[in-house]
Amino acid sequence: MSNDAPINLNDFIRDVQDFPKPGITFKDITPLLLSSPAFEECINQMAEKVSDLEIDVIAAAEARGFLFAAPLALKLGIGMVPIRKPGKLPHDKHSYSYELEYGTDTLEMHVDGISKGQNVLIVDDLLATGGTVEACCRMIEKCEANITGCLFLIHLAFLDGAKKLDPYPVISLLDY
Amino acid sequence: MSNDAPINLNDFIRDVQDFPKPGITFKDITPLLLSSPAFEECINQMAEKVSDLEIDVIAAAEARGFLFAAPLALKLGIGMVPIRKPGKLPHDKHSYSYELEYGTDTLEMHVDGISKGQNVLIVDDLLATGGTVEACCRMIEKCEANITGCLFLIHLAFLDGAKKLDPYPVISLLDY
Repeated sequence: MSNDAPINLNDFIRDVQDFPKPGITFKDITPLLLSSPAFEECINQMAEKVSDLEIDVIAAAEARGFLFAAPLALKLGIGMVPIRKPGKLPHDKHSYSYELEYGTDTLEMHVDGISKGQNVLIVDDLLATGGTVEACCRMIEKCEANITGCLFLIHLAFLDGAKKLDPYPVISLLDY
Repeated sequence: MSNDAPINLNDFIRDVQDFPKPGITFKDITPLLLSSPAFEECINQMAEKVSDLEIDVIAAAEARGFLFAAPLALKLGIGMVPIRKPGKLPHDKHSYSYELEYGTDTLEMHVDGISKGQNVLIVDDLLATGGTVEACCRMIEKCEANITGCLFLIHLAFLDGAKKLDPYPVISLLDY
């Protein structure tokens, strides 16, 4: 590819049929990670998409969210806060449990990660049904911080996940 | 802090006593992530440390490894390959199981992530006993690729993890 050729991020997302279950088409981001020009274009586009927002800190849930949140935080010159599965974070924590199709899941975040009144951008690779990011929103609300937006590389709009994140703006680079 | 003040990365690592078990002092990297100047300095120092190595691609295990591998890959202008827990990667995979203190664990990596003969840098936040990174090495060896080094923000040298990674060079920014 010439350096001047425009990069279409969609070319770096691989559809994998019937994963993790029959009937589901999984959006595989690993080809994007493997192409430095495409990955860089993705982070540049993310930065551009949020250039009008007030953001003090980025929050992201493990593991794939980390891949985009870390470079974006560095590009924007702000810090990032990891949101993790239980038992991973060592210090004083907020915790939020939410319902899955079968059972419940819990997320944790250090209490010193986000302060009252801060403007927070949540970043993840993909918005599907929105359960994880909704849980992130509830936990960040506990800190009395402002969620200025939820940014995704991919938005599977037909799954209606954006409704769960209402009233927060959903911002995405690729919509299916 | 003035923009000209030198940044000591060690100031951004928090010791947490008795986590995850009594007697263990956990090195918490979340203060580093929260400081954009410190996080950027960390990635710059990582790039500097490996500037003499031939590297075609970076490999990193979830989740904390992603936080450093993604920005470093972008800075070096090369791709990155995520190494994940079972059931997360959708495409054709290598897999490697290894022994833990109690039971076993398994890591997976897409077969198209690393090609025969490529030079691979493994990146993680911390080298302790080395079990996870050793498993990454064994899996990358399956691809007949060359491991040019294993790079860590933190090396707990008293735990002798570097021996498990022999003969590969262990490179680190902070040694305890």
